[in-house]
Amino acid sequence: MSLITKIETWITKPEKSIDGWSILKPFLFLKLSLSDGLNGWGEAFTLPTREKGMVEIIHNLATYIASSSLQDLDPYEFHRKANLIADGHRGLDYSSATSALEMSLWDIKGKRENKSLSKILSKNPKRNVAVYANTWSEISPNCEKISKRALELLKQGYGGIKIYPLQNRSVDQAASCVSLIRGTIGSDTPLMLDLACPADPNDSLKLATLVKEFNPYWFEEPVDGEKTKMLKSIRNQTGLRIMTGEKQCGVNHYMETLYAEAVDIFNPDIAGVGGIIDMLKISELSKENNVVISPHCWNSMSIAAAAMLHFCAADSNTDKAEIFPDYIENGLKYCENNFIIKNGHAELNDKPGLGVAVNVDNLIKLTSDYKETKLN
Amino acid sequence: MSLITKIETWITKPEKSIDGWSILKPFLFLKLSLSDGLNGWGEAFTLPTREKGMVEIIHNLATYIASSSLQDLDPYEFHRKANLIADGHRGLDYSSATSALEMSLWDIKGKRENKSLSKILSKNPKRNVAVYANTWSEISPNCEKISKRALELLKQGYGGIKIYPLQNRSVDQAASCVSLIRGTIGSDTPLMLDLACPADPNDSLKLATLVKEFNPYWFEEPVDGEKTKMLKSIRNQTGLRIMTGEKQCGVNHYMETLYAEAVDIFNPDIAGVGGIIDMLKISELSKENNVVISPHCWNSMSIAAAAMLHFCAADSNTDKAEIFPDYIENGLKYCENNFIIKNGHAELNDKPGLGVAVNVDNLIKLTSDYKETKLN
Repeated sequence: MSLITKIETWITKPEKSIDGWSILKPFLFLKLSLSDGLNGWGEAFTLPTREKGMVEIIHNLATYIASSSLQDLDPYEFHRKANLIADGHRGLDYSSATSALEMSLWDIKGKRENKSLSKILSKNPKRNVAVYANTWSEISPNCEKISKRALELLKQGYGGIKIYPLQNRSVDQAASCVSLIRGTIGSDTPLMLDLACPADPNDSLKLATLVKEFNPYWFEEPVDGEKTKMLKSIRNQTGLRIMTGEKQCGVNHYMETLYAEAVDIFNPDIAGVGGIIDMLKISELSKENNVVISPHCWNSMSIAAAAMLHFCAADSNTDKAEIFPDYIENGLKYCENNFIIKNGHAELNDKPGLGVAVNVDNLIKLTSDYKETKLN
Repeated sequence: MSLITKIETWITKPEKSIDGWSILKPFLFLKLSLSDGLNGWGEAFTLPTREKGMVEIIHNLATYIASSSLQDLDPYEFHRKANLIADGHRGLDYSSATSALEMSLWDIKGKRENKSLSKILSKNPKRNVAVYANTWSEISPNCEKISKRALELLKQGYGGIKIYPLQNRSVDQAASCVSLIRGTIGSDTPLMLDLACPADPNDSLKLATLVKEFNPYWFEEPVDGEKTKMLKSIRNQTGLRIMTGEKQCGVNHYMETLYAEAVDIFNPDIAGVGGIIDMLKISELSKENNVVISPHCWNSMSIAAAAMLHFCAADSNTDKAEIFPDYIENGLKYCENNFIIKNGHAELNDKPGLGVAVNVDNLIKLTSDYKETKLN
């Protein structure tokens, strides 16, 4: 039986995207090394003031796995034990840690079986996964700039554009921005609107009335994802396809949101929801309720994006996956990705596990916090 | 203006209770020191593999407070900023960290204004807070031992007894245990049943039928607190008073549970829910829906218990507060508490802030992880 010999984590420094579009947040990567020479990579969804906390949870959980008889480092066995340890005490810090660890166990399993993750998860995975481009930027570009960028991204092969109409805009300005961008990209291109939980939920309702004619592909987080009753009311009042779920975790939350008929599309974060096993379960429950999954991935476009794309390739109930185009080039400094963008899709490579090769020497140069725990 | 000069945290080692009843879990304390010589204490709700993660979040958040212009270290201003930083990304690790920090700011405010916390929160606080005794033990005592202990605790002045009937027992054995203990303590003593989310929710339903005649004071966590629909169904089917909320955090969750009419009593943890301000808000919303608050306090019986008792003393919508009697004596090794147990109540002292004096030299002897961050 192979043993875990080491867990390492890297928190990257925030940096400007190479194309100048945005500031990349710190990312959190982990590598699990085994006594038989195999290793697995994972990534955790990060949040301000909480990255180092997640690192501690990761190292403590890894120490626990290493000391317990986790049968062949099976992801399902890890999932079961991580839930036992949590005993129902949930939260994004813990679920991001378990997401990253479980991801690395899937990577190891793929490498051991010489199969890509999507081939482990499905007998007949897709090779091309539908994707859209997120235009988020902390720099708050004006609408004309977003419009110009949207056209460029469509030319690069993305199959849809997500914008944040209420970012630094009044409801009326937001509606004008949606109108401009719809005019620019044409009526057939999916246009996703992310409301990002405005302070006043009435803003979401007002905007819905004004932008309905522009046929938004979905209407994301018109209100906090835990405000189920209000989400349902907005869904009923607007008739728009409601998306929620990126800030939540654990299967029970999504199940209750399904019961409440408050949602059309869930977007749990691939590196935050708890793990790929939770994603699969949420997708299965969603399918029974005619709700689809379009995973959130506000992470590096390397490790976590690879996990997301394999999940989408393997799961029959998914809609377009989320890509941050401006993050890709930065990631290439330390990582060979598992996909290329083409014709509205990400075409996946067929390498074992996640299919991502990390250059640790380059990664450490971009790192603010590295931590290693030797085990066994 | 006084500045934060230092944040310190202590994680205590697990140890057997002095009375031999249970094993105390690690506790997490923090001390915030100011340039004007004042200091404040807080405590975070702890969970296995996650304590050091909480420590990191606490130090990072404290560094943020110290560098920002937090007006006079006002708890409300901290609450607002901690929510802004989280941007809706919730979880017990973060909310335990904010609970502990906010608690220390209340302690500081009380010391500065020379008022007890309950006098800051209310013009006319109670001096005596109704309490019950929790008989939880990881050692799984048999029913006869619990019964004997229940009698002792009632003699010591506790106003009710909580037991865990399904701990290592079948449903039938659990019902017999409830019967025995009800017989021992008499029909007038509040007897709280904590189901602790059995793997099969049907066990809760079956037990409810068998124990209804023994008049349980409440029926706690018959199922996971996020399974709102099932909680409501159990509430309707059993007619028992349902308690939930100890494993959740953030106001929105409790609001949705109220909307769903799934609960009679909430028990958010005083050191885990997010802070005293969230507790007050949850209580206010609950009162409008005829739901009361009986705070959970699976923490040391020193800092966190003091915060809980001040909250209960100040808030008009509270039922009995939770005491772990076996933890008290251990806490006295490093802490002078703010209460004594008498006639079903905790009688509070009237000292400023939390009213708790900590002996740091003694605390460090029981500590596995101490961390200090110098600020300003």
